[in-house]
Amino acid sequence: MSLSPAIQRLVEALRCLPGVGPKSAQRMAFHLLERDREGGRRLAAALTDAIDKVGHCEQCRTLTEEPVCGICRSDSRDRSQLCVVETPADIVAVEQATDFRGLYFVLMGHLSPLDGIGPADIGLDRLAERLARGEVAEIILATNPTVEGEATAQYIADLARSHGIRATRLAHGIPLGGELEYVDGGTLSHAFSGRRDL
Amino acid sequence: MSLSPAIQRLVEALRCLPGVGPKSAQRMAFHLLERDREGGRRLAAALTDAIDKVGHCEQCRTLTEEPVCGICRSDSRDRSQLCVVETPADIVAVEQATDFRGLYFVLMGHLSPLDGIGPADIGLDRLAERLARGEVAEIILATNPTVEGEATAQYIADLARSHGIRATRLAHGIPLGGELEYVDGGTLSHAFSGRRDL
Ligand SMILES: [Zn+2]
Ligand SMILES: [Zn+2]
Repeated sequence: MSLSPAIQRLVEALRCLPGVGPKSAQRMAFHLLERDREGGRRLAAALTDAIDKVGHCEQCRTLTEEPVCGICRSDSRDRSQLCVVETPADIVAVEQATDFRGLYFVLMGHLSPLDGIGPADIGLDRLAERLARGEVAEIILATNPTVEGEATAQYIADLARSHGIRATRLAHGIPLGGELEYVDGGTLSHAFSGRRDL
Repeated sequence: MSLSPAIQRLVEALRCLPGVGPKSAQRMAFHLLERDREGGRRLAAALTDAIDKVGHCEQCRTLTEEPVCGICRSDSRDRSQLCVVETPADIVAVEQATDFRGLYFVLMGHLSPLDGIGPADIGLDRLAERLARGEVAEIILATNPTVEGEATAQYIADLARSHGIRATRLAHGIPLGGELEYVDGGTLSHAFSGRRDL
C-alpha cells in the first residue's frame, strides 16, 4: 500500500460521507493535507461540536442544539398550521420554496411495520398530545410520495380527524416515488399551494 | 434560516472538501447527525490525527506521518530508478497501474515562474544532492502533460544530464492537458513502459 497509516485511516473515515467513494475520499484527504489544513481542523471541530450538542427540538423533533428550535420559538409563525415532514432536510426545502409561515413536526422517518417502526417511533404519541391541546387548525401532510410516506400521511390524517382537525396533503405534482428534499422549488411550491383535504 | 447554528457551521465546514457544494454539504451533515454519529466522530479524530502528524518524507517529500515513507524504507525497491511526480496521488496512480519497483521523488507542485514557484520550492535542491550521490541511474519524469509539467520535466532532464544521469519521459498516450491522477490504468501503464529518453 502506498499510503501511510494516518492517511489511509483518513481516507477510510471520509467514506462515511454519503456519495464519497474510494477515489474521491483519497482526493479529499490529499486536498486537505496539501492545501487546506485549517479547513480540515475547522471541519473536525464542527463535527465534534455538532455531534456532541445536537439533539431534537422538544416541540417539533427537528435536529437542533437548542431545547426548542428557532422556528418553534418564533413569534411570527402561525401556530394554527402544522406541516408534518419526514426529515429536517424537508423543512429546509419547504422554507426555501414556499411562503409557509406555520410550524413543523418532523417524524424523523415514516411508518414501516416490516422494519418494526410504529407510531411511537415517529413521535405520533407526542403529535396526538399536541393536537389535543387545540392550537392546531390544519395539519399539512408533506411526507414523501412513496408507499410508506402515503401510508404515514393516511394514518396521521385519521389521527387529525379524530381530533376534529383538518388534514391536507400536498397536491400531486411531486413526482411519484421521488424524495421531497430533491424536488425543484417550483414544483414543491406549486404542490404546496395546491394541497387538498385528505 | 431554518438550520440551527451548530448544524449551519457543520454544513459550512464541509464545504472545504473538494467537489462539495451547499446541497451535498447539507445532505452530509444530516446524514451524519441522523444516521452515523459514530462515523462522524471517527472522521473528526482521523482528521485531527492526520493534520497533526502528517508531514513530508525526508527522502521523497511525499505526505507521511513517518520520518521516511514506506516506499523509501523498503528493501525490495530498485534504488537506481527514480520516478519524479507532482503529487502524492500520482504515486498511488503509478503504483496501482504499473509494475514500477523503483523510488519516487514528489515535487508537491511544478515550476511556475509567474506564481513565484522556482526550483527550490519544488525540492530540486534536494533532488540535485541526491543525484550527486550517484545511486540513481535513471530518472523517470512523470509530471503532468501540461505546459508547466512539460517545462518542469525539461528542467529536471537538464539537471539529470548535468549529473550524467539518463532522463526519460512517460510516452505519449497520456491525453494532453490531462491530470496524471485521473488517467485510466491501462493508458498510464502503456505510457510508463513506453517511456523515452529526453
Ligand atoms: Zn422545533
Ligand atoms: Zn519517501
